[in-house]
Amino acid sequence: MTTAYETLLERTREVHLLESTAEILSWDQETMMPAGGVEHRAKQMALLAQLSHERASSDELGDLLATSADEAAGDDAIANVRELQRDYERRTRVPAALVAEMAETTSRAQHAWAEARAASDFAAFQPWLDKVLHLSRQRAECLGVPEGGELWDALAEDFEPGMRAASLERLFTPLREKLSTLVREIGSATPPSNRFNELTLPIEQQEAFVRSVAGSMGFDFERGRLDRSTHPFCGGSHYGDVRITTRFHDDNLGDALGSTMHEAGHGLYEQGLSADHLGTPLGSSVSLGIHESQSRLWENHVGRSAAFWRWARPQLASTFGAAVADFDEPELFRTANLVRPSLIRVEADEATYNLHVVVRFELERALIRGDLTTADLPAAWNEAYVDCLGVEVPDDRRGCLQDVHWSCGLVGYFPTYTLGTLYSAQFYAAAERAIPDLDGHIERGEFEPLRGWLLANVHCHGRRFSPDALCARATGSGLDADVFLSYLESKLRPVYGI
Amino acid sequence: MTTAYETLLERTREVHLLESTAEILSWDQETMMPAGGVEHRAKQMALLAQLSHERASSDELGDLLATSADEAAGDDAIANVRELQRDYERRTRVPAALVAEMAETTSRAQHAWAEARAASDFAAFQPWLDKVLHLSRQRAECLGVPEGGELWDALAEDFEPGMRAASLERLFTPLREKLSTLVREIGSATPPSNRFNELTLPIEQQEAFVRSVAGSMGFDFERGRLDRSTHPFCGGSHYGDVRITTRFHDDNLGDALGSTMHEAGHGLYEQGLSADHLGTPLGSSVSLGIHESQSRLWENHVGRSAAFWRWARPQLASTFGAAVADFDEPELFRTANLVRPSLIRVEADEATYNLHVVVRFELERALIRGDLTTADLPAAWNEAYVDCLGVEVPDDRRGCLQDVHWSCGLVGYFPTYTLGTLYSAQFYAAAERAIPDLDGHIERGEFEPLRGWLLANVHCHGRRFSPDALCARATGSGLDADVFLSYLESKLRPVYGI
Repeated sequence: MTTAYETLLERTREVHLLESTAEILSWDQETMMPAGGVEHRAKQMALLAQLSHERASSDELGDLLATSADEAAGDDAIANVRELQRDYERRTRVPAALVAEMAETTSRAQHAWAEARAASDFAAFQPWLDKVLHLSRQRAECLGVPEGGELWDALAEDFEPGMRAASLERLFTPLREKLSTLVREIGSATPPSNRFNELTLPIEQQEAFVRSVAGSMGFDFERGRLDRSTHPFCGGSHYGDVRITTRFHDDNLGDALGSTMHEAGHGLYEQGLSADHLGTPLGSSVSLGIHESQSRLWENHVGRSAAFWRWARPQLASTFGAAVADFDEPELFRTANLVRPSLIRVEADEATYNLHVVVRFELERALIRGDLTTADLPAAWNEAYVDCLGVEVPDDRRGCLQDVHWSCGLVGYFPTYTLGTLYSAQFYAAAERAIPDLDGHIERGEFEPLRGWLLANVHCHGRRFSPDALCARATGSGLDADVFLSYLESKLRPVYGI
Repeated sequence: MTTAYETLLERTREVHLLESTAEILSWDQETMMPAGGVEHRAKQMALLAQLSHERASSDELGDLLATSADEAAGDDAIANVRELQRDYERRTRVPAALVAEMAETTSRAQHAWAEARAASDFAAFQPWLDKVLHLSRQRAECLGVPEGGELWDALAEDFEPGMRAASLERLFTPLREKLSTLVREIGSATPPSNRFNELTLPIEQQEAFVRSVAGSMGFDFERGRLDRSTHPFCGGSHYGDVRITTRFHDDNLGDALGSTMHEAGHGLYEQGLSADHLGTPLGSSVSLGIHESQSRLWENHVGRSAAFWRWARPQLASTFGAAVADFDEPELFRTANLVRPSLIRVEADEATYNLHVVVRFELERALIRGDLTTADLPAAWNEAYVDCLGVEVPDDRRGCLQDVHWSCGLVGYFPTYTLGTLYSAQFYAAAERAIPDLDGHIERGEFEPLRGWLLANVHCHGRRFSPDALCARATGSGLDADVFLSYLESKLRPVYGI
């Protein structure tokens, strides 16, 4: 006899088949699809979204969940039912009319944003931002404010279960202060040379190099691909077919390498998810913050370490030959750790990146609370950039119009980037404690012990534990910004001689 | 108010969205998907097939069809309803249990076939072939034998509406006789040199060359792609996203060029389908035979003509440089028209290809009628090859086990290859009558008049006319093997001096 739980999993896996089909179409759209495919592809995606939404919010699923909750026995079943119940409730709380209005508004808002950004014309985007915020607030009301929380929290749950604005404030306020101070100190010191990343290197060789680094990290090309796209991302359908992308510039190997290691870090998480639990919560990634911790760990803790460059130096020489003969390991390491306050988040370095994020969190929280009007957003943005990063914002294109997120309705998303940073530092420190001579392994290009530790402590758990509980299990403590701050200070102070 | 016909088209377009999603996944599987994706992809494809089948055979669709048939006004609506009615009837006549049994059996039969072919062990495949034939006969009974026809006809309708075994017999018997005679005569003459297609040429240059030929033909790369796959094919989602593939060998440019022109011919048909009628019968290709006529026209009538090689000679020189300096146009033309009786259909030349097809048609018809048992198939196959092509079949791997079709349940498919050949000759002859100095245009690389004629006379009609009626409208006469035979004789006799 088939139990309700078994039928529940069957239905859940069917939804996953539809969602993973959309994932492949989405990857295709970014990497392969000819221009003529745009309109038809949007219709295919809309239909797939409709079909999976119908199935994921059906009454039948609700009944199966109720019966399964009564029956569920064993840790796996209990965890899966708990997570499916959560997803189902969130999906069914928002009326279809609001979902449709949100979809249509954000689709048009994205076009308006793209035009407004190109023209650096915030006024043209402002009414759209108002609409998106208005609908987001309505959505948050439907989803329900967590106990003791605020509207913003209801939205942030989409990306990071358990994330609360009030806790973030406690975490981010000192982080902002300490990072700003560090960045200011760095600003008054002599920066390392950046000539390595200004070197013109053939793109075919760059590609061979980053592909080999991804392979060394343990990214399995039998269960994945690496392609090019304008904005690097990690997609694919499941643990057996994980697709990462990167981008190349003639004269910025560091960008291609950083992007590749970042996306390969995401890719290792996806490839490390449980095959037995495919298509169910226990076989899915737990949150954007934890996902981002995996990418940042490889991009920063590995890719910007002295040990990594001791390994990479001869690899570079064998790929690029005489062109790189002039660069020794200390210079390569220092170049990888160049800190330069700048206007654009996606181009920011390891130290300043989180300041960009904190600014966005504070502003979007104020917008949702009604403490800030959209009319006042540009001025507030520009003031925060002077305050945090010491840079003057010359126009809104390079200011509050730079990110696509709000136009897509992604409110509550930005902080996950910084949670990823903080988690990555904690995971890396725990891995260092667990793996004797981790630095020595990395210096020898032996990345397997680190990947194995991440697999056992993060990847394999799927959504069994909350992000915070997962962190506590793996590292011995909950979210804590100090681990990141000490790591950063102890690396950057010697680089800058401060 | 929405009419039943409008709702019918809406539902039909939804089915097309699902089918075209499966088409993209299928293209991805052949060109991009890593090995680890196989199992999950099969599940995605099965779910998409189930969803589109449910929709395409729903009671609601049946009701909409009935109402639309009463209401339909205007040529477009009448044609669309007629074709949708036909598809609906065929889909709903076969019980779900038989569809499922067929799907499972053919899936397993394909594995058995692949193993049997590798081992050249017909006995291992024979029980599977028996099962497939048994189920095919059951399917044909459900579909219904056309008036005055036979079981085989019911199956062939899947691929070529209106195709009847008895008519094919009348067409193929003299074709077989005349082609065999011509091939025998050619066999006793001195063959042209094949040294051009034995030349080792860099694959990047080969790719640049065939890509440029496809572009010259009018294949629109803004609405399509060209990639590599083991077996060349034409796929994609709709007229705005058409994906063709080709293959390369170090030392056989002719194969890459022929495959590319063949698939680009299919691609031009797809890109030429009506945008207004996207997702409905009037925006779909009419039959496999007509589709194949478009590929063969470009591959053979254009690609193996003296005029084409007068154009291509300087193109070759500018791509491959000194490597091809030694080849003049007459030699290139003669090499493209080399005739060599062989064992393998997919490697056959323009003259012998149709003999391979006729043999298959005669044998599968006899199998379905019960005039031939599977036990006697290898002997019958080998005898026919001696008789038609004058070649001894050394083993079943290169004999009756060479094609995947029967293991997939594709009974009634093979003749469409030859119908394509015959239609292509008729279309090309009509285009020659309609376009003054077509040879001159081709010699100057002006392919647009020919593409334009095909667009106006074939592509744009979709399924408005039956294949035979389409041919009659475009060429002034129905299917006729003599046009092909005269074309072939008048080209090959001078090449072979016979």
